[in-house]
Amino acid sequence: MKFAIEAVDRSLEPALQAKVDQKTKPLGALGALESLAVQIGLVQQSLEPRLQRPVIGVFAADHGIAEEGVSAYPQAVTGQMVQNFLDGGAAINVLARQHGITLEVVDAGIREPLLDKPKLVDARIAAGTRNSCREPAMAPEQCREALSAGASLVTGWCRAGTNVAGFGEMGIGNTSPAALLTALFTGLPLERCVGRGTGLDAAALAAKQDALSRALSRSRLTPDKARADPLRAMSELGGFEIAMMCGGMLRAAELRALVLVDGFIATSAFLAARALVPAVTDYAVLTHRSAERGHRAALDVLGQPPLLSLGMRLGEGTGAALAYPILESAVRLLNEMASFSEAGVSERS
Amino acid sequence: MKFAIEAVDRSLEPALQAKVDQKTKPLGALGALESLAVQIGLVQQSLEPRLQRPVIGVFAADHGIAEEGVSAYPQAVTGQMVQNFLDGGAAINVLARQHGITLEVVDAGIREPLLDKPKLVDARIAAGTRNSCREPAMAPEQCREALSAGASLVTGWCRAGTNVAGFGEMGIGNTSPAALLTALFTGLPLERCVGRGTGLDAAALAAKQDALSRALSRSRLTPDKARADPLRAMSELGGFEIAMMCGGMLRAAELRALVLVDGFIATSAFLAARALVPAVTDYAVLTHRSAERGHRAALDVLGQPPLLSLGMRLGEGTGAALAYPILESAVRLLNEMASFSEAGVSERS
Repeated sequence: MKFAIEAVDRSLEPALQAKVDQKTKPLGALGALESLAVQIGLVQQSLEPRLQRPVIGVFAADHGIAEEGVSAYPQAVTGQMVQNFLDGGAAINVLARQHGITLEVVDAGIREPLLDKPKLVDARIAAGTRNSCREPAMAPEQCREALSAGASLVTGWCRAGTNVAGFGEMGIGNTSPAALLTALFTGLPLERCVGRGTGLDAAALAAKQDALSRALSRSRLTPDKARADPLRAMSELGGFEIAMMCGGMLRAAELRALVLVDGFIATSAFLAARALVPAVTDYAVLTHRSAERGHRAALDVLGQPPLLSLGMRLGEGTGAALAYPILESAVRLLNEMASFSEAGVSERS
Repeated sequence: MKFAIEAVDRSLEPALQAKVDQKTKPLGALGALESLAVQIGLVQQSLEPRLQRPVIGVFAADHGIAEEGVSAYPQAVTGQMVQNFLDGGAAINVLARQHGITLEVVDAGIREPLLDKPKLVDARIAAGTRNSCREPAMAPEQCREALSAGASLVTGWCRAGTNVAGFGEMGIGNTSPAALLTALFTGLPLERCVGRGTGLDAAALAAKQDALSRALSRSRLTPDKARADPLRAMSELGGFEIAMMCGGMLRAAELRALVLVDGFIATSAFLAARALVPAVTDYAVLTHRSAERGHRAALDVLGQPPLLSLGMRLGEGTGAALAYPILESAVRLLNEMASFSEAGVSERS
């Protein structure tokens, strides 16, 4: 599938910057909010951008590699947490309610399907991926199917008026595929990309390192090969939720919506999306610097600091939800602040 | 005047921490939001804390030291910006509206009083401070009067139900008194505390450095003397808005309200407040890491990272307003998230 993402037209940038600079504040005094306001204006090609109907998708899936003992939690927790999302009891539910963000909970391929859950989006590819230490995590068709399902979902959001799409996830073991993809798409050594996830001790971390090294060797992928064929990298070592987020991010950018990238796992999906279509970067806002080790590595390569750094390592889109009011602030400041001339305030001498 | 601030009773801490730890998330996965939730619970002595009627005060005053050319803006801008606050056009107005925060604009001593402004709180001490390069910025009685005025104002807020009090400011030239107080209360060299403020060039920065060195020498104050007599330090080198914020912070803590400390200038007031009554620290939340050089110095000494680091250097309470939804998130997560047992989610193996 093709994503026809246009690089953002920057011809409006001087006018947006001038509007920011004429506000009653010293030049640059609103820091990151100023560049954010300009970015949002460019994405929407408007001097008066508006955020509409924000949605966060929580993409859930299971991972064959969990059988290598790479997580502190049993795999059943993925499905249990999906039930928790549907019941409104998880952190992302609380934050989405607080900020008026619509939540979409997506079964991208959890092990045991939840039955009769009308609020759950059924986009199941399979009952979890295969163990990538032994074989490809998914077939190439499954990877394409996941990208396509993510894209279709986002098309639905945007048709309903959404112009801010956030991407979060849940999947016991999914820091493992994220670490593998981060290593491949950044070219950094695998050990810099592997962390404690939900709380491994030193011995379990060493076992996780070992399992991921085996998976990487088996795949015979290198950074060059991964960049040349991102879908193969995702098929070999990724996860259904990661591929689905990747497809969703690409479609969101294609439809000129802002893409809110949550923590480590979502960033690995974003790295894949960038490898497929670099122009997706213009539409993306990195929302939170995760405490998970590999996220630092990814962010170093992306070279763009996230809006928040609250030491969280939860996923679910929580970083995107917490950052949303800052995007809203950037837009409101651009639209509502008085200029020096409107307010009769003297400019610098 | 005395502030009878009780150190927070920590006997509820294990119960609060247990409540946080039983939520459906890995231990510690909500990072700074977890410690914030515990702090708020301790301040309110409740397992179900609530934030009520948040207020941010914007304390405005002028500074005699401005005549040394320490700011890029003319002094008239202080009064013009106060008018802008009253008209609703400044950054802090936009952010306060966004988050339902009540704004109180306070004339703590601007040069030219604004007449017939019923929404402006008149707490004028004088028409600006004196030039501290030549003489004490204010008389000791004026400093006490400013503390008292700040305290009275906050008493009014708390009587109306406020339990979150934010402190911001406006005053052309006020990074100068803030730098002097920061140097004295942290014991760091003055040059580490002096920055470009609203945008000085290198030559103007050197002149500011020189003026502040002269003011410090004239005062004969040392860090030891300042800590032994914080009011003298504030009288010699401070500002009316700084002293008023200091009194307000101390009263807020006395009345068991949370104290939101904004950027560099507000932090200098907080350093003075801590020197007067160390227990104020238990009630304080540092909201934003300013881009102004001296703020880094102050934060290094305080040893507590602020919630946000958005590269702003504006004051007005903007950092406090942007951080407010994060406090609200911390409280809601504590109150609304399901526990493992409520949600039927397995704990770690």
